[in-house]
Amino acid sequence: MTSSPVSVVPVEAPKEEPLELSLLAEVEKNQPWICPASAKSIRTVNPIRAIVDPIVANMKTGEERGDGKDLISLALGDPTVAGNLPPCPVALTAVETALQSQGHAAGYVNACGVPAAREAIARFHNAKSADAVVIANGCSGALELALTALLDPGTVLLVPSPGFPLYQVIAESHGASVVHYRLLPDQNWECDLRHMEELLGLYGPHRVRGILVNNPCNPTGAVFSRAHLEQLVAFAERHRLPIVADEVYGDLTFQEHPFHPMACVASGKVPVITASGLAKQFLVPGWRVGWIVFHDNVQGSLREVEAGAKRLAQVVLGASHLVQMVVPKILDSNNQELRQWKADLKLTLEEQAKFLSLKLKDCPGLEVKEPQGAMYFILRIHVSKFGPAIQSDLDFSSLLLQEENVFVLPGIAFGVPGFFRVVFCGPATVLEQATKRIQCFCERHFQAS
Amino acid sequence: MTSSPVSVVPVEAPKEEPLELSLLAEVEKNQPWICPASAKSIRTVNPIRAIVDPIVANMKTGEERGDGKDLISLALGDPTVAGNLPPCPVALTAVETALQSQGHAAGYVNACGVPAAREAIARFHNAKSADAVVIANGCSGALELALTALLDPGTVLLVPSPGFPLYQVIAESHGASVVHYRLLPDQNWECDLRHMEELLGLYGPHRVRGILVNNPCNPTGAVFSRAHLEQLVAFAERHRLPIVADEVYGDLTFQEHPFHPMACVASGKVPVITASGLAKQFLVPGWRVGWIVFHDNVQGSLREVEAGAKRLAQVVLGASHLVQMVVPKILDSNNQELRQWKADLKLTLEEQAKFLSLKLKDCPGLEVKEPQGAMYFILRIHVSKFGPAIQSDLDFSSLLLQEENVFVLPGIAFGVPGFFRVVFCGPATVLEQATKRIQCFCERHFQAS
Ligand SMILES: Cc1ncc(COP(=O)(O)O)c(C=O)c1O
Ligand SMILES: Cc1ncc(COP(=O)(O)O)c(C=O)c1O
Repeated sequence: MTSSPVSVVPVEAPKEEPLELSLLAEVEKNQPWICPASAKSIRTVNPIRAIVDPIVANMKTGEERGDGKDLISLALGDPTVAGNLPPCPVALTAVETALQSQGHAAGYVNACGVPAAREAIARFHNAKSADAVVIANGCSGALELALTALLDPGTVLLVPSPGFPLYQVIAESHGASVVHYRLLPDQNWECDLRHMEELLGLYGPHRVRGILVNNPCNPTGAVFSRAHLEQLVAFAERHRLPIVADEVYGDLTFQEHPFHPMACVASGKVPVITASGLAKQFLVPGWRVGWIVFHDNVQGSLREVEAGAKRLAQVVLGASHLVQMVVPKILDSNNQELRQWKADLKLTLEEQAKFLSLKLKDCPGLEVKEPQGAMYFILRIHVSKFGPAIQSDLDFSSLLLQEENVFVLPGIAFGVPGFFRVVFCGPATVLEQATKRIQCFCERHFQAS
Repeated sequence: MTSSPVSVVPVEAPKEEPLELSLLAEVEKNQPWICPASAKSIRTVNPIRAIVDPIVANMKTGEERGDGKDLISLALGDPTVAGNLPPCPVALTAVETALQSQGHAAGYVNACGVPAAREAIARFHNAKSADAVVIANGCSGALELALTALLDPGTVLLVPSPGFPLYQVIAESHGASVVHYRLLPDQNWECDLRHMEELLGLYGPHRVRGILVNNPCNPTGAVFSRAHLEQLVAFAERHRLPIVADEVYGDLTFQEHPFHPMACVASGKVPVITASGLAKQFLVPGWRVGWIVFHDNVQGSLREVEAGAKRLAQVVLGASHLVQMVVPKILDSNNQELRQWKADLKLTLEEQAKFLSLKLKDCPGLEVKEPQGAMYFILRIHVSKFGPAIQSDLDFSSLLLQEENVFVLPGIAFGVPGFFRVVFCGPATVLEQATKRIQCFCERHFQAS
């Protein structure tokens, strides 16, 4: 632990031995002058890019292709792109109001966020107090704060596979790593607790710093039952590990699959850091408002980590003041209009998901895993039933783009080869077009044995 | 260099020996369950807090004090607090327009920023292309990207003293450190090149990764002449070091002190990473829009660092899309109204600075260092000329708060004991009140020998 007094000139001589490099330096003056990049910046790599970028590089418009087939993307987790799902109107008016207010929401705010926003988040998540909340730059920024406070180089975070790649990016950026626990495709993509148990045995309890649970889940579209969450809590309690609950999709679940916040299930037992934000639940992903909420247990297990995350938050000062002003208004549970808007959004998403999965079930060689919420689901590709051009999910999605100009992400991007992911946010007409093209594609390449 | 392939379950056994901690784990089950905070979160400490927080904790309103003396703060670098310097109107209308646009600026954007904003920044800074720009969460976020890409644990950044404490916070957060080079109070707070030379000798050229130059300068209010910048460039070139130019105050300088961007002076010779933002130049610090611009030299010295910073930017996805939409409008050099607004702001700041420094010159025991720009200046306290209650700058500012309810930051917060900093953003009436109180205070404690 370094204490950091304010340095005052004249500074002292360095304590480590002064490097004897003056000769070397002379020699190198004749060499090209390259400033090295830090090791951290080198190991900060999103593995999805190496997979997706070559696909994207081949994208063409219908005109460029000459066949008039416009690009249909079912790839990006941005619900706003097609225009059929506009931002929550409360968000728009809240920013207008903030702009016209005295001060125009232009001043610096506390590094942990605007007090009214922190209070609203605390109420929304049933947290002890506003003090348990840290507002960040999107849920990505929130996850970065949480994982940076939790992980040291050489330590490990258990994360789901398939799963959102950012957890790995953040952990590796800090010199820590992730270990993937299996989600079970044939058991509603639940966590494979036996596999988790095995992994803990392998890595030792002191090396593992926490368990990341993502519910509702990207990319699977699964929503965990209360019973399953209780199993996870019991597991975490037995091993004395905290849970990081990525709940950025919040209650965007279908009627028969109610959302249970991890912090409610774990209450008092297992410490939970909930990460969430406005991005998906209120359709403003580009505005970058996210947060973490510390739900400690009776033992106060999280106090050091919470203090650490708050210190880290001071470096870049969270989200824009202007967009933070949206939070108190949009998390107001008494606003009837807002509730109606949310209910409508959920119905729309459910209809679109049902439509898409119904149509894709008819495609030969594909097996649909029904979604229960979020904005995605995953399909299994029975690769052996397709011709030689399709040996993998990567082949499938590359060829689908090439032949039908439909863009889906291969499972390998989420750690699950042999599958692909579709986003069901687009408007019905687009989804219909997409399914037609995918069906043609599958029929063309399917080889019944 | 770790390559990061997408992990696919089943994962392999860990390569390092599995820790034999199972026995220990059993024992510890009976111990309190404390999740350790990461070393990084522990060493991320803003040293200013330990100095300022105890002062702030003692703050009282005029009513609480019973003497009706309301708090006057000349401490915070937030120009918006008093209300006399409202945000640039172009910023407000740009957000309005973005809100009403199709898409409402709500979607995800490229991790390096909105293309139109990057282009405007590139033009504004005479950069090669928009590709050289990375938009970040305020200038703080920009500095974090730049320094994280540049520094490794064990390496060193040369930073000014007195100076903005964030450089040290960021460097130490990453396990790197800063070495303070002296600014010369009696030479217009210019950089002490001899001291810099000495420090390089001590630390060796391979340990030092760059030189941070802050111009216009916080806390000194100095604006460097072109000749001085040329000296700095020659120094950096001789030692083959890149310059990080923190120019967040941009051209907020007084009439007789034109601003010269470091990148212009260094052009083609020394690689410069310019960090800047909207905060101070357009009076919207809370909106969190900053950027770095890579100005490489003929040798392409920065290419690795630039690539590294761009990878780092992908983790949290920069600034809010909504506020990024302000950038193309506010950096439009053809907007006559905007130029007039800027000219007026500069005049106002200059007037306020002159007023404040003139009045404070009359205070016994103080020595004013005239500002040339930015929002601050620094005064020397001739401690030996004050009574026993004032032995240091910290005593001075604590007692000034206690007796006169005027809040100024002691020099020690910026690494320069024996001085204090004042902000000249407040309205004339407030500045007048403040000077009266400071004058009374100095007269009361001054002991002519
Ligand atoms: C599971 C999950 N967590 C976090 C995020 C990041 O959210 P944000 O856009 O608020 O950073 C995403 C975005 O797609 C996600 O799918
Ligand atoms: C010298 C200097 N650099 C950078 C910053 C940070 O600017 P921002 O508010 O855009 O993060 C400040 C803020 O006071 C500053 O004084």
